[in-house]
Amino acid sequence: MDQKISVAILGASGYGGIQLVRLLLEHPAVDITYLGGEGSAGRPYTELYPHLQDRVSLVVEPVDVEAIAQKSKVVFLSLPNGLAMDLAPALLERGCRVLDLSADYRFTNLKTYTLWYNKERQDQDIAAKAVYGLPELYRDRLQGADLVGCPGCYPTASLLALSPLLKQGLIVPETAIIDAKSGTSGGGRQAKVNLLLAEADGSLGAYNVARHRHTPEIEQICSDLAGQPVQVQFTPHLIPMPRGILATVYATLRDPGLVRDDLITIYQAFYRHSPWVKILPSGIYPQTKWACGTNSCYIGIEVDERTGRVIVMSAIDNLLKGQAGQAVQCLNLMMGWPETLGLPQLAFYP
Amino acid sequence: MDQKISVAILGASGYGGIQLVRLLLEHPAVDITYLGGEGSAGRPYTELYPHLQDRVSLVVEPVDVEAIAQKSKVVFLSLPNGLAMDLAPALLERGCRVLDLSADYRFTNLKTYTLWYNKERQDQDIAAKAVYGLPELYRDRLQGADLVGCPGCYPTASLLALSPLLKQGLIVPETAIIDAKSGTSGGGRQAKVNLLLAEADGSLGAYNVARHRHTPEIEQICSDLAGQPVQVQFTPHLIPMPRGILATVYATLRDPGLVRDDLITIYQAFYRHSPWVKILPSGIYPQTKWACGTNSCYIGIEVDERTGRVIVMSAIDNLLKGQAGQAVQCLNLMMGWPETLGLPQLAFYP
Amino acid sequence: MDQKISVAILGASGYGGIQLVRLLLEHPAVDITYLGGEGSAGRPYTELYPHLQDRVSLVVEPVDVEAIAQKSKVVFLSLPNGLAMDLAPALLERGCRVLDLSADYRFTNLKTYTLWYNKERQDQDIAAKAVYGLPELYRDRLQGADLVGCPGCYPTASLLALSPLLKQGLIVPETAIIDAKSGTSGGGRQAKVNLLLAEADGSLGAYNVARHRHTPEIEQICSDLAGQPVQVQFTPHLIPMPRGILATVYATLRDPGLVRDDLITIYQAFYRHSPWVKILPSGIYPQTKWACGTNSCYIGIEVDERTGRVIVMSAIDNLLKGQAGQAVQCLNLMMGWPETLGLPQLAFYP
Amino acid sequence: MDQKISVAILGASGYGGIQLVRLLLEHPAVDITYLGGEGSAGRPYTELYPHLQDRVSLVVEPVDVEAIAQKSKVVFLSLPNGLAMDLAPALLERGCRVLDLSADYRFTNLKTYTLWYNKERQDQDIAAKAVYGLPELYRDRLQGADLVGCPGCYPTASLLALSPLLKQGLIVPETAIIDAKSGTSGGGRQAKVNLLLAEADGSLGAYNVARHRHTPEIEQICSDLAGQPVQVQFTPHLIPMPRGILATVYATLRDPGLVRDDLITIYQAFYRHSPWVKILPSGIYPQTKWACGTNSCYIGIEVDERTGRVIVMSAIDNLLKGQAGQAVQCLNLMMGWPETLGLPQLAFYP
Repeated sequence: MDQKISVAILGASGYGGIQLVRLLLEHPAVDITYLGGEGSAGRPYTELYPHLQDRVSLVVEPVDVEAIAQKSKVVFLSLPNGLAMDLAPALLERGCRVLDLSADYRFTNLKTYTLWYNKERQDQDIAAKAVYGLPELYRDRLQGADLVGCPGCYPTASLLALSPLLKQGLIVPETAIIDAKSGTSGGGRQAKVNLLLAEADGSLGAYNVARHRHTPEIEQICSDLAGQPVQVQFTPHLIPMPRGILATVYATLRDPGLVRDDLITIYQAFYRHSPWVKILPSGIYPQTKWACGTNSCYIGIEVDERTGRVIVMSAIDNLLKGQAGQAVQCLNLMMGWPETLGLPQLAFYP
Repeated sequence: MDQKISVAILGASGYGGIQLVRLLLEHPAVDITYLGGEGSAGRPYTELYPHLQDRVSLVVEPVDVEAIAQKSKVVFLSLPNGLAMDLAPALLERGCRVLDLSADYRFTNLKTYTLWYNKERQDQDIAAKAVYGLPELYRDRLQGADLVGCPGCYPTASLLALSPLLKQGLIVPETAIIDAKSGTSGGGRQAKVNLLLAEADGSLGAYNVARHRHTPEIEQICSDLAGQPVQVQFTPHLIPMPRGILATVYATLRDPGLVRDDLITIYQAFYRHSPWVKILPSGIYPQTKWACGTNSCYIGIEVDERTGRVIVMSAIDNLLKGQAGQAVQCLNLMMGWPETLGLPQLAFYP
Repeated sequence: MDQKISVAILGASGYGGIQLVRLLLEHPAVDITYLGGEGSAGRPYTELYPHLQDRVSLVVEPVDVEAIAQKSKVVFLSLPNGLAMDLAPALLERGCRVLDLSADYRFTNLKTYTLWYNKERQDQDIAAKAVYGLPELYRDRLQGADLVGCPGCYPTASLLALSPLLKQGLIVPETAIIDAKSGTSGGGRQAKVNLLLAEADGSLGAYNVARHRHTPEIEQICSDLAGQPVQVQFTPHLIPMPRGILATVYATLRDPGLVRDDLITIYQAFYRHSPWVKILPSGIYPQTKWACGTNSCYIGIEVDERTGRVIVMSAIDNLLKGQAGQAVQCLNLMMGWPETLGLPQLAFYP
Repeated sequence: MDQKISVAILGASGYGGIQLVRLLLEHPAVDITYLGGEGSAGRPYTELYPHLQDRVSLVVEPVDVEAIAQKSKVVFLSLPNGLAMDLAPALLERGCRVLDLSADYRFTNLKTYTLWYNKERQDQDIAAKAVYGLPELYRDRLQGADLVGCPGCYPTASLLALSPLLKQGLIVPETAIIDAKSGTSGGGRQAKVNLLLAEADGSLGAYNVARHRHTPEIEQICSDLAGQPVQVQFTPHLIPMPRGILATVYATLRDPGLVRDDLITIYQAFYRHSPWVKILPSGIYPQTKWACGTNSCYIGIEVDERTGRVIVMSAIDNLLKGQAGQAVQCLNLMMGWPETLGLPQLAFYP
């Protein structure tokens, strides 16, 4: 590639930001030209992340749309919910292509957004053009997209587990239950008491039961796949580890005669063009550690013939396939590059 | 108490054994008179657990029924499955009272045992007299019992969460799904590669999906409570922490009008005579760490009015309420002592 | 004990506070009558620590000296450095006995305090009467004391390891190096980014090298023991675990002929009246987990005959023997109660 | 590179083996042609490490020197101590170049080996030709070497911290104390009780104090650097995390006038041709997590002007720079490739 694409990362100080920096530093077709942040503006980035010495010389800059658009063709927004809706229109207007990692551009129906996120929206036109950045489902639409609403971490793991079942009509949709477990980095680089090692290590609990904001996002895509409105039960849990999500998904099969190997075959077919989804062989269930440090999603499948249910387990790195890695995967598609370009494939184990 | 009861612990070297030793050293009505084990026979117990220096002077002895019966009125069997069925009859015959922590005496129908544990049984008569050692359900039968089959760790957490719902007929039984998460000590003090810190730390996965041996044990008691055969979906997961179980239980409510506070009231009433079960107030969900180092079970309850499901979360210390603590609670009932005698109530937090 | 002593805990919301609450709830001679705190004043204590439901009904109150003195004979101050110096004089004047867990009353020479803590002091007279609350060294002075400056967590572990060597003149004092490792709860219940599980788990590093404030505290007591000014090298490290400190102490022996068993004998003699110090047998080194949840200090001793050095390892629970447990031990001595009263002796292992 | 070099990995099932597999799969100049192991011979490698599905199709083969030499130009030996001494001569004879990750070829004086490892040696001639595989010290000799004795993990971290001080004569050699802390993967993929998560998590302790076998290895190189026999104090500790080593090194400066920035300059100069050593700026100390998943060594330096000591902290990934990564770095030098070829540079953080 003769000329690299210039990219900006806004919200560079957080965990989404540092993942993007880490990935894009090793991406062969990209140059990082702008690191933006409010709280840390004016500080050399290596003050925040000293291990990057020798690799990053940029200073964090305030979020200035003009300056960003001058320096960068592509902008990643890794900001708290509610900020992208102001920035993205201005950046698009100036010719930037935008990948938003927040919830702002994940919803086709902004009423759902307003209901769950308590914010009114004025940008229905722009939101309608945003593509939901789950390449395994919306690969075609991502090619050439200018605005991508990158999925949440839980929806990514949940939807990759559920999609073949819903798309093929194999399950009774309203029986779907997603019991999800996440490492604590999902809470971001914010100092919250419940995320302290002293509190969270050696312990485990659910949170936001029956009302987590990733629920409507999952339901929107499930409904799209099923061709009918789908409600799911979604429960997130905090696990004493830094990274990784495991979603354990339960659903009742329509056809009780389906066995495990049938489903493995169906999943393999569904994801045959998806290099980042790894369907595990019969009897093997995923460990989150296999996915950590990679953009892969490992899926294991079991059928309980006694109860007539399928149990699908999907494991991802919540900060890579669940966030920054997926955003880069979307960028690859937007630019017409190979989907795997510059993304890590193999975990270090153990 | 003028005279203490003499107790033996067989399988003293394992995690069940060390928990029993720890608890019974501080129990005011008990003297430990015999520590038995095969692999470590002949070694001072403090060689295995040096932190007990000054507190334990016993040497581990081989498992010799005559010697045990001479020295001990009560015998705890903390051995691999399949050994108690030979030892318990011989000990009962010699006048000992027996608490078995293995699966051998948990099943009223030994065909179920044989089906899931692959062992033929000849002791149906004795097994029929064994009491299932979950005091919150079988308190009356434990008073005066001579043989107790102490529950598994997962069944304890699962059944304490499910019992009020099944007993009161509040849920559709076949919709019950138990997604359980356990610290790795549940695997015992055996050196298995997948339980190494290097493998298990920072990772998470399900195992024995749709075929874990605790399933029929849960179903037996659920069926007893519901008055009809009940099948449940049970999935265990290994969590990167030493101790603790969280069971997240899902079920569809028969009456969609029930709200969270109704259920909290029902649970409080159901457990009003159960000092070890703590029903959490509205909106509070249990952390396993609250239960660690105690015999308590913390239960949090949520209703999802969108989906019509109840979600119950129960947290225990898998080695105490899930194993050795519960056995001591059973002993207290067998001897007519207060149910809380000698058992720890308060976790150290954090 | 016919009548229990009323105690107040100021700074009840922090980790020192919750440890004191936990310990004193189970202490047979004490009643908690006042929980004070600024940030959480007005909130039921169980809102902060829900696992204490059924056990604590107190509401956190603002720090009001008159109200405290009316309700409590003994006051524990578990506050940030610099606050006790104002509160303690007022409480003493009103007849309370005070145990301060901060650094304010640990120094006999307030110039040292001012130098390391950057605060001027006006209370030299009161500070001069304070007793350093390390019972193993100052047991006699604690009996009847009205003001106790409880030691820091690192000094406790370090001094219990070093004292016999210095007191008996066995080492060259200026060769003493203390490499200390602590769980992250030592940083308190404050939300700091570097103490997040996502940052601290799976990692390890030193901090405040050559300038940690516990250095002068260790040196003050070492000098007292050696009868000459002693400087030590002290390096703290953060370890990815909630609780526990291990101090690995190195020093050159004056007499190269001393062997490990000689030193073990000397340590056993030095601590023969100290029920909380456990000298390990030859070849056994302490694990912090043995001490967690207890007030014990485990000490292992090694001599390297090649290099002429002694290596002493001491393990404590930083929040118990290193903080709240030791304060209760001091209270026991102040009140003439048995030194072990109401304090936990046995860890749960694993 | 037109033609890739064929390599064999013996001991492929262990942690050293899987690291080599992981690194060499992504190395642009290498083809893995043989995976050898005894215990797992005959099994597809992905049975041992399922996350490698799609990437490794090799079956583990028995260790057969003829077959290996036919298929591979370079052989990595990642076997227990004492096996390489038989295999390496046979492989060299057949024209293979050998990198041994065990202790067998680390010692120039085999008497030292025999003394610490309790094995007689017959291969003094071959051992004398082996190069100690620490590229930062022996870069020149590695170019063209046929037999490399790759360093232990602790010696790597310790020597990178100590070398500039010893080489320049800045410290009193016999004052050097190395307090080292390692994640538990250093114990290998063997199921040992003390390495179980249930035992090791939440705990910390020293082991092999004053007699760890890495001591003579460190001393051999220190003596070489200092030009005189050097004895060091070395103490290893197990830390509750999978990967990473931090060595905290203490030594007395000869010149008490040296300050921190002087030493930083000296270290930067010493390592100016060493791309894998990162000297941290003033006041920054390394976190092991910065090095995890990379071949880098981060070094922080502090001077205590009160005591006249220098404190150097070095952080590495024990399985990469401490083992397999360093072996690949050696291979790069042996083959005349760039020293950084195919090796990971940037950690995922957090």
